[in-house]
Amino acid sequence: MNVRVFRGEQPVPALSPADRGLAYGDGLFETLLAVDGDIPWWHAHWRRLSTGAARLGITPPDEAFLRSAADDLLGQGRQVLKLILTRGESGRGYLPADGPPTSILSVHPAPAAEEAPLALHWCETPVARQPALAGLKHLNRLENVLARAECERVGRAEGLMCDEQGYVRCATAANVFALIDSVWHTPDAALGGVAGVARAQLLALEPGIRVAELSRLMLENAEAVFLSNAVRGMMAVDRIGETAFARSAAFDTLKQRFLATYPAFARD
Amino acid sequence: MNVRVFRGEQPVPALSPADRGLAYGDGLFETLLAVDGDIPWWHAHWRRLSTGAARLGITPPDEAFLRSAADDLLGQGRQVLKLILTRGESGRGYLPADGPPTSILSVHPAPAAEEAPLALHWCETPVARQPALAGLKHLNRLENVLARAECERVGRAEGLMCDEQGYVRCATAANVFALIDSVWHTPDAALGGVAGVARAQLLALEPGIRVAELSRLMLENAEAVFLSNAVRGMMAVDRIGETAFARSAAFDTLKQRFLATYPAFARD
Repeated sequence: MNVRVFRGEQPVPALSPADRGLAYGDGLFETLLAVDGDIPWWHAHWRRLSTGAARLGITPPDEAFLRSAADDLLGQGRQVLKLILTRGESGRGYLPADGPPTSILSVHPAPAAEEAPLALHWCETPVARQPALAGLKHLNRLENVLARAECERVGRAEGLMCDEQGYVRCATAANVFALIDSVWHTPDAALGGVAGVARAQLLALEPGIRVAELSRLMLENAEAVFLSNAVRGMMAVDRIGETAFARSAAFDTLKQRFLATYPAFARD
Repeated sequence: MNVRVFRGEQPVPALSPADRGLAYGDGLFETLLAVDGDIPWWHAHWRRLSTGAARLGITPPDEAFLRSAADDLLGQGRQVLKLILTRGESGRGYLPADGPPTSILSVHPAPAAEEAPLALHWCETPVARQPALAGLKHLNRLENVLARAECERVGRAEGLMCDEQGYVRCATAANVFALIDSVWHTPDAALGGVAGVARAQLLALEPGIRVAELSRLMLENAEAVFLSNAVRGMMAVDRIGETAFARSAAFDTLKQRFLATYPAFARD
């Protein structure tokens, strides 16, 4: 893994075992698509990271510093840049310290192009309601880990997660959209899950998308369902649990517009 | 900081930036009191750690291996041993990998003896209801970090956290007990917060303690309130928000029994 660790803006050889990112998940992360060293959605990711850092009371390094560090790491082809920002080191105890934050940048191969629409599992692990953290891409992700492990046990690559009221919030690593009465709907990220960067770009591209509470039954009766994330873009869904979905012309049309606007997500 | 990192049972020089403890808070921790190299509650901590690991699907190293590694680190006097267990390294993505777990042992000075009873803050940060994680001492602790930061802002060293239904769950780093109609009560850790080792020892010592839902009003009207954790033992509380509590003979009696049974927690 091609990786750099910084304490403030100082390179350090390794992560401290006293880092609060490890101790408490006290930080945030971003996962960015890069193509030939270019990061098409850098600004949107930076906006979310700095907004999240403000909510948690973490002061991030300068945007230009992190962007330059990322540029030094990236090469040719399709890659994924992962950026972790933590509150830095501290002694034992939850009380936040005033030291410099830690930034960890790493570069990974981009996933292979999707071969086929996704079959989703209905995850039993719920998304907890936590207004203080909803929408943030923070490092407290045990719910997602447990939900993803469930999907693996039933042989599916992704799954939908609901809150305890039974409303669909997200997939384990993506946002979810459902076509209901010919209108695309997506859950409110302020009530749980991550406010995805791809989701935000889709909401900007298609203002007709409605943000609304969606029950499991509404998903099962939807005309079409898709997932989005900032590495894979738009992903068709052809099955949730036992419910099958036919190929959707509305999905194809929206995906064409998405790829025309964001050509970095076009494959082949 | 005196620290050792192991990948499985192999010592490694530093924590990998690809460790899932950092990436997702995918792990657990224990904080143990040691006196002159002895760890009086080792077995209770080990039981909670291995139970939690089973719930998360993490295979811990042998107990004897970790205990021996701890013994190598500990010295004379009062110390705190912190033990972090993570699911180990993996590539990008929530899917758990099958590699060896990571163990991080570190030794810290024990906190100074309490000078005075504690004044508590009513934290605004709620404890999220998450049955999949309730009771575990896992690494997803952003709620506690935000709640502790609140306490600091109002100049108090600890605070009480409630769930969204308004029931008291815990302090930021301790369990809570309230004397109501001459009976000690403590919240059900299966509904949120951490199932504290000191709490378990107290429940075994005094079977009359009732596990029950406690509202904020019940706490404010209680005859006495105290906190417990596995480093500080029993801590008297003389104020919550604006509500003052007089010194309690029932607390003094229970604390005398506690210290007689667990003399490692006696100071001076």
